[in-house]
Order: sequence, then C-alpha cells, then structure tokens
Amino acid sequence: MALKVSDIGEKELINYILSQSGDIIADDSAITRLNNLNLISTCDMLIESRHFPKNMSYFEMGFKAVTVNVSDLAAMGADPLAFLLSIAVYKDLKVDDFKEIIEGVISACEYYDIPLIGGDTNEASEIIISGTALGLCDNPLMKNTAKNGDLICLTDKIGLAALGFELSENNIYTERALKPLARLKEGKVINEANATSATDITDGLASELYEMKPDSLGFMIYEDKLEISDEFKEISSSLNLNYLDLILHVGEDFELLFTINQENDLDIDYIVIGEVNTSDRIEITLSNGEVKEIENKGYNHYVS
Amino acid sequence: MALKVSDIGEKELINYILSQSGDIIADDSAITRLNNLNLISTCDMLIESRHFPKNMSYFEMGFKAVTVNVSDLAAMGADPLAFLLSIAVYKDLKVDDFKEIIEGVISACEYYDIPLIGGDTNEASEIIISGTALGLCDNPLMKNTAKNGDLICLTDKIGLAALGFELSENNIYTERALKPLARLKEGKVINEANATSATDITDGLASELYEMKPDSLGFMIYEDKLEISDEFKEISSSLNLNYLDLILHVGEDFELLFTINQENDLDIDYIVIGEVNTSDRIEITLSNGEVKEIENKGYNHYVS
Repeated sequence: MALKVSDIGEKELINYILSQSGDIIADDSAITRLNNLNLISTCDMLIESRHFPKNMSYFEMGFKAVTVNVSDLAAMGADPLAFLLSIAVYKDLKVDDFKEIIEGVISACEYYDIPLIGGDTNEASEIIISGTALGLCDNPLMKNTAKNGDLICLTDKIGLAALGFELSENNIYTERALKPLARLKEGKVINEANATSATDITDGLASELYEMKPDSLGFMIYEDKLEISDEFKEISSSLNLNYLDLILHVGEDFELLFTINQENDLDIDYIVIGEVNTSDRIEITLSNGEVKEIENKGYNHYVS
Repeated sequence: MALKVSDIGEKELINYILSQSGDIIADDSAITRLNNLNLISTCDMLIESRHFPKNMSYFEMGFKAVTVNVSDLAAMGADPLAFLLSIAVYKDLKVDDFKEIIEGVISACEYYDIPLIGGDTNEASEIIISGTALGLCDNPLMKNTAKNGDLICLTDKIGLAALGFELSENNIYTERALKPLARLKEGKVINEANATSATDITDGLASELYEMKPDSLGFMIYEDKLEISDEFKEISSSLNLNYLDLILHVGEDFELLFTINQENDLDIDYIVIGEVNTSDRIEITLSNGEVKEIENKGYNHYVS
C-alpha cells in the first residue's frame, strides 16, 4: 500500500524538501545577503482547525498570524522590516468577522512595528492565514551554534500556552494560548549580548533542544529550574495530563530558547534552565534527582 | 441579517485591507527601499479546489505555485531573488504525491532561477500552496502610469488558459491551463524598453485594464487585434461559452499587459491590442465596428 504523509510525519516531509533544495538553511528564518545587508525572511501558515484554540476571537487569530512569523525574526535577533499577508476565508464568513481578523493583523503589525506591505485574499473551506515576515540583521543568531559550558536559558517559563489550549475559562494559561506575543525586543538584546544560539519554542522544548544541539555537544536541563508552579501541576493532573509532557512536548509559547556564555551581561529577565556539556545527549535532571534522556518528540502535524 | 463575505466580494475585502494599512501600494508587488536597492515582494496562495484544474498533476500544482508569484515579479520588471514556500496537505496524501508537488516547486525555481530559501509545512483539509517571491529592481514598472497615446500590448494572445480550464483532452488550451509560465524575461525587457506601465493577467483582461487605468485616461481595445482564432470561437460556442467573456473576464494566462510609447524599440514578440486615449472609459471596438464599454468584471472569489 502506498505510504501516506501521516505515516512518515512532518519532520520527514521537511527533510525531503531540504534534501531537494541546496538553498535552504535549517534555521528559524532564511538569510539572503544583499550588498552589506542580511535580509531575513520567514513564512508560516496558520490553519483554523489546527492552530486556533476553540474560544479564540477573530482578532486574536489575526494577531497570532503576525506573532508566529515575527517570532522567527526574534529568534534570529533581527529588526522587523515588512509583513505580507495571504488570507483565505469561507464564503459564509461574516464581513464583520473578516474585518476583525484584519484588525488583529494590523494591530499586531503596529505592536511589532512591522508594516503590512502586501497581501492576497482567497476562498477556502476554513480560515487560513499565511504570513511572510521580512527583517534585517547584521549578525543573525543561528540555531545550533551553542558552545560547551554555555547556560541554556528561556525568556520566560513555558508550558502555559499548552495548558491553556486545554482550558476554556479565562486565566493566565488561556491568556498565553489566545494572545501569544513574540519576543522581538528580547531577541535583539540577546543577540547584542552575544548569545551563542537561539530559537523560538513553537513545537515544544524537547524538539527545539534537538534542533539546537550541535554535534558532539549535549544539554542538561533541570526540572527544578523550569519554575513549574504547584497550580500548573494540579491543573494538569486534573486533566489527566502529564505536566512535564506539556512543557517538553507541546509548545505554542513563542518564548525564546537560547544559549549564552556564563560570563554575560544580559540585561533582560530570563531564566536559566540548564547547561551545555559534552555528553552528546539531551537529558533532564528530575526533581527527585533522577537523570532521564529527553525524548525527541514534539508537536507533529499529520500524525494523529 | 449579517453581511457575509460572499455578499460583498473579493475586491471589497481587498479595499478594506488597503483602507486599514497605510503601507500597501495597490500594485502587483510591494516595494521596500533598502539603501540603494528596491526589494520587491509578493505573496499568492493557491487552493486545490479553486486554482487547480481537475486533471492537473501534482508536479504542475507545485510549478504553478511558483509561477503565480514569479509572475508578479515579472509585472514589475524585477530580477528574482528568492522564494519561500508554505504548503499544507491532508494526512491521507500519498508521500509520492507530496514529493511530486515539491519536485514541481523545485523545477519551477530552477526554471525561473529563483532559489527556494525557506518554508513551512502544515496539515489542512485540502492542498494549499502559499508562496512568497522576493526580487530586486532598480525602476519597478508600476501598474497605473500609462500615458495618453501609448500602445496597449500583450506578451501573447490570451484566453487559452480560460478555455483550457473547461476542457479535459490534451491540447494547446489545456497546456496553458496546466502549465502556465510567468513572463519573467519579457518583464525585464519591457522595463528596459521604458514601458510606461505593466501588470500580469490573472483575473482577466477587463479587470486588469480597470486596475491599470489612470484617472482621466481611457483605453480602446480592438477585438480584431486580439488574434482570436476560429477554432477558439468554435470550441467556446460548443461549450455554450461566449468567447469574448473567456478573454475579457476569466484570466489565468499570466501574460503581461503593458503600455508603451508608440516610438519604442521593444525587442520581444508581442501583440498590440489597443491604445491609451483621453476618453476616461475602457472600451472595445468589436469586429462588426460596434464600440462597447468593457464591463469591470473579473474572476471574483467568494461570489458563486
């Protein structure tokens, strides 16, 4: 029987595309040299049935479509330059709802100071918002250039959006799921402080760590440094969800994960969650002292 | 009852977006000034149920997704710089079919000499291919800057793809519908020959003429100059279609429509279909000598 895309999963599809084009770098955004400038570009598509929590407003959908793209600029430490929007909606969508999506897009463009310069509209069976963010950066922060001994850091604690996707009442978790923000300013500060590598957390900490891991180096993460609240554990448990799974394997936080030399003068709030070593493994020290290898598993399209 | 997007149509939605962003120019592509360079950018989304003829191969879908974007660069007279791909497919798509789409994309990128530099994959209920083309251009060819007395020209005759969408056998019409090509080289030559304006024909000659018309100027098109073959008329008639409707109101040809001074030394094949005047109207002189105003009607998403 012929193999289907659900049999091999998203990563394999991406690997196939990478194998066919010699011009793609496997990082958060593409880099194109233009005279003395580095043009940074990235595109990301959001699909109603996949990326929008059920109680998300149309405004929030539009805003998020900009955020996910700007987050890839943030992960490179880039300055925003311009945003392009391709949007498809179904015929029966109310005009007021369409306008609310566009207001969300415009509002996000203003928030991130990135002008909306072009676009395209279409008809589809569900709402699809595809964005392209362009940016500029003198020294783009790459994904897998961490050095031995570096600290592994996050711009804030993670897992909140993942939990929020499972909840319907208004709280800090649903807030993060419905109104995620890209860490654009933090990305620039991290880059200027000479961080050694960075990426944004879209598919979960585990899969981003595996994408970030340089050959022959390893990462040790400490559960006790992840700032997991008792409330987070209790709500997860009440939903029959493993709280560490939410943190390691779900994502949607858009916090930046980065590595930086222990001697640094980084002037933003951040949390240190581990360090780079020479183990060639990605491990976590649990609160009970046990050391476990982190599974390379993240949010994967196509696989149900 | 609340107004739906199908009640107002695509143009009104685009007008709403334009009214909300002060940074969009209503042309084929956006222009961003970068030091001494003009960065040209454009995005276009293709949706299986809307843009792909039923007998189109997966390879042709991938190729077309690049063509529609490169065509917008061609309309500005730009050099291609880079291409980004966002693709969504359904879970049950065969891996071999997915690979064929990607081969079509890569093959088109090679054909137009535009490197594929980045992308994104997703799951959706139908195939969606959203592309972004980036280019460079010293003097971008704008859409509505025609001058009185200019010739109105096409890079080749049109309507063939529109007819091809209605046919299933292999012929020159289905060839144009299944394998459209962007007029990238022609766009550069036209620009270098100091054409006064240009656009590509995606939604039909009529709607492109209305987008191209400068205030207070008018266009006269001649049916006899459109090079409509007897065969084209006969097939249209056998399908109960009006041959002029196919040419004026359907599109999908990706030929360039441009205006140029009568004294020009344009060194490509092209056909002159009319001239710019001061009538402030867009009219056609039919073969029987009758002059009619061309209706401002093109392919419109949302409206069934």
